[in-house]
Amino acid sequence: MSSDGLDRVRALIPAIPDFPQPGIVFRDLFPVFRDPKALEALSAHLTTHLLNLPTDVDVIVGIDARGFLLGPLLAARVGASFVPVRKRGKLPGDVVRTSYAKEYGVDEVEIQKDAIKAGQNVVVLDDLIATGGSAKAAGELVRMIGGNIIEYLFVIELEALAGRDVLDAPVYAPIVY
Amino acid sequence: MSSDGLDRVRALIPAIPDFPQPGIVFRDLFPVFRDPKALEALSAHLTTHLLNLPTDVDVIVGIDARGFLLGPLLAARVGASFVPVRKRGKLPGDVVRTSYAKEYGVDEVEIQKDAIKAGQNVVVLDDLIATGGSAKAAGELVRMIGGNIIEYLFVIELEALAGRDVLDAPVYAPIVY
Repeated sequence: MSSDGLDRVRALIPAIPDFPQPGIVFRDLFPVFRDPKALEALSAHLTTHLLNLPTDVDVIVGIDARGFLLGPLLAARVGASFVPVRKRGKLPGDVVRTSYAKEYGVDEVEIQKDAIKAGQNVVVLDDLIATGGSAKAAGELVRMIGGNIIEYLFVIELEALAGRDVLDAPVYAPIVY
Repeated sequence: MSSDGLDRVRALIPAIPDFPQPGIVFRDLFPVFRDPKALEALSAHLTTHLLNLPTDVDVIVGIDARGFLLGPLLAARVGASFVPVRKRGKLPGDVVRTSYAKEYGVDEVEIQKDAIKAGQNVVVLDDLIATGGSAKAAGELVRMIGGNIIEYLFVIELEALAGRDVLDAPVYAPIVY
């Protein structure tokens, strides 16, 4: 039993070879959400982590779609706002937009302009960091509307892909492969 | 002040004309997630509702992507599992699949076969019900793997579109337009 309380979580994350494409090993976090005790262990770990940051968190920004799973849950626990980053065309009102390269093609993502007040302290959240492209793009959007990024937060880090090297603020992920 | 505690929530939901297409009035729930007090009011209301159902909730099934926003949060509060329904090709492992007609074309959605045990009591969750097509498809997937649907739960119901008429279990939505 390690001291971070996440052994039950780790035991529920299978490695699925060749999904969604040959050569990719997919880490499936959904079995954790099926197990109320594991979900609580993970939520409690991340909540404690956020409450112990040197700066209070004003806003949690979650990346569509799997960043939505823990974003509002953690925002509610630490008393922060939750704000989404979504693919182009999915958010109403005034938005800002950026793009990033994926293995095949380019993705365009947006954030609502009035979603963050200038100077608010922001944590960017997703379930997993691989190459870091989508998190980097989300961070760019946060900065475009004046947010101050205090951390990039993930559940799982795929260390060999070195995604944290493209991000310009501290990175935390409790489960590393 | 109405007795359901949701006045603060209602005040934060704008009606956005002609989004995402001309003729559609979009109800944007994201401003509620930006306001910690409104998110707590909404979460508390839905948690109380779920805890007062005549049957204990074993599983909350959330529809990608906006059903992910409240699904794990509510599952954690009532001690249930959270299980996703996603578009074809996004879930690893053995899945079952169904399809439903949209205004333009057909959507195919999937659920993991081992996500629900036969006879478990399931609530199907999304942020909003319009024509009910995606919720109906999610319900079909739940039944295909043996789940017992006790309710379809939404935050917002667009009453004129009569989506609840295509669903074969009770429907609850606290905010109706």
